Amino acid sequence: MNLVVQVQERGDPAAALEPLMQLVRDEMGEVNQIILSQARSDVALIPELAQHLINSGGKRLRPMLTIGAAKLCGYREDGHIKLAAAVEFMHTATLLHDDVVDESDMRRGKKSARLLWGNQASVLVGDFLLGQAFRMMVDVGSLGALKILSEASSIIAEGEVMQLAASKNLATTEEDYLAVILAKTAALFSAAAEIGAVITGRSASEQAALRLYGTNIGLAFQLIDDALDYSGEAASLGKRVGDDFREGKITLPVLLSYRRGSAEERAFWRRTLQDGAIEDADLDEAIALMRRHNAIEETIERACLYGKEAREALHIFPKGEARTALLDAIDFSISRMH
Amino acid sequence: MNLVVQVQERGDPAAALEPLMQLVRDEMGEVNQIILSQARSDVALIPELAQHLINSGGKRLRPMLTIGAAKLCGYREDGHIKLAAAVEFMHTATLLHDDVVDESDMRRGKKSARLLWGNQASVLVGDFLLGQAFRMMVDVGSLGALKILSEASSIIAEGEVMQLAASKNLATTEEDYLAVILAKTAALFSAAAEIGAVITGRSASEQAALRLYGTNIGLAFQLIDDALDYSGEAASLGKRVGDDFREGKITLPVLLSYRRGSAEERAFWRRTLQDGAIEDADLDEAIALMRRHNAIEETIERACLYGKEAREALHIFPKGEARTALLDAIDFSISRMH
Repeated sequence: MNLVVQVQERGDPAAALEPLMQLVRDEMGEVNQIILSQARSDVALIPELAQHLINSGGKRLRPMLTIGAAKLCGYREDGHIKLAAAVEFMHTATLLHDDVVDESDMRRGKKSARLLWGNQASVLVGDFLLGQAFRMMVDVGSLGALKILSEASSIIAEGEVMQLAASKNLATTEEDYLAVILAKTAALFSAAAEIGAVITGRSASEQAALRLYGTNIGLAFQLIDDALDYSGEAASLGKRVGDDFREGKITLPVLLSYRRGSAEERAFWRRTLQDGAIEDADLDEAIALMRRHNAIEETIERACLYGKEAREALHIFPKGEARTALLDAIDFSISRMH
Repeated sequence: MNLVVQVQERGDPAAALEPLMQLVRDEMGEVNQIILSQARSDVALIPELAQHLINSGGKRLRPMLTIGAAKLCGYREDGHIKLAAAVEFMHTATLLHDDVVDESDMRRGKKSARLLWGNQASVLVGDFLLGQAFRMMVDVGSLGALKILSEASSIIAEGEVMQLAASKNLATTEEDYLAVILAKTAALFSAAAEIGAVITGRSASEQAALRLYGTNIGLAFQLIDDALDYSGEAASLGKRVGDDFREGKITLPVLLSYRRGSAEERAFWRRTLQDGAIEDADLDEAIALMRRHNAIEETIERACLYGKEAREALHIFPKGEARTALLDAIDFSISRMH
């Protein structure tokens, strides 16, 4: 509980991302150039749609982790730029396909691409960006990085399918839920960080440490995301509160509330999430049930525990600006909740 | 016109594929094993959906070209097996996404995956197969093959977007149409053949010859496909006659008929393809107009010309079983029309 209070008292959450943003500022300028140039195509619809999402104010946390990890490892060449751009394209492609799958109308506070250009274009432009991501990776020429990122690509899709299969299903266990977020979210964070060590030719244990750091920061990030969906703060992140609720997504706050609920409460969750029979006052009721069972606080607590794991993973690296920045990024991932 | 008559008199079209099938039989047994094992996942929905399409009786022409080209080049290792499987996965992923984009209900004479499992699962399983394709390519470790296939991946998606943008648009030019089929179809045939030379370390001119062969056989293949959509033979290939017509796809038979049509005929094409106001007798009328303007025959004639280009490209290779088999595969691609 102390952790939660700590987090919530931290003040401006973006401040915790400042050190990493400072550390990677020059490189991210180059990454952003590459992102713009690789989203170009003679087929006008492609840059139009891609840039709607690319320019929509995402923080680019994943590519920042790649650059930050490469700097932590003392990388001295320029392959990390294209790899970071590839990581962001993989993420963007996933978002485009996600919005089609979830039938989302909003993304980062703007109308979603699928609402503006249709599902068909969103699917195909997602495919294009994924293709461009692989072209950039191939350009860099590190088979080690290619192996990690191509594996992540399959695993992310597996996670999305798992999530689809678990949708509206209150028999989903916490273990199932963890498997979903490990695959759909943590796998890319993990790969993004690990490739920093791989392209620098660092030892297997350093590679494993960055992988572990990435996995745990990714888990923390997703848990907070799932908590935000039932908190008033979601609006400030460009999400609409209750999106997961309306889509029947079974997330940890739901699982905890359902497990601890009375027979009557369970009937409420079945009606709303399983049967999709959602009325106006139901979101408020869902949030009230979560408060009653401490579900949001506990979700944040779990995120803090994963954050602690991420923190410990970096201990094998020497102190310094890069390590501090990556450690602070953990706080950012968690304190978004504030 | 002679070419057309030749083609139409050839008899059983599948016979022309026999030499290639014989040539690559052992390797394709291994490719099929890899395809099955790489479509596996703990997430039950993935193999279920993937194998519906994988087992639906596709000819696997593209991976056969990879194996055939590798044999033509005297390849002696085993990387071609995984690359061929990767090529087939890229194709399968495209089909899954295509069916979502086209809202198709049938594929290879069976209900489409999207009809059985939904658009959402089809998008995500397509993503999974694409990820698995890249994992296999990385396993083989040829950066040259990776470069060609990752470029093809982007180009295919570009072609699909171009096609989407040209849909229902009778202002599409023949040049536009060629650009679409070059990207959406010929690029993968081209890559499939070219990588056979690349992994064998053959000269740039041999690599270019196989690329040219693949491009031209791919163009011929797609032209015949587009002609088949307005012919009674489509049913035997598991397509429904008139699918392109109902989807408002602007293909060469349409372009030729529209360009040569009377004012009244053009009004017919605008009503049906542009406005999508299609009545029961309209497909028959479309086919009658194509007959009047010789549009199907001329589409086949163009396919024959590309076939001739494909044939000439292989001249720099010595005579032998592999070259004969690849040449006969051109006849197969065209004589499917019979």
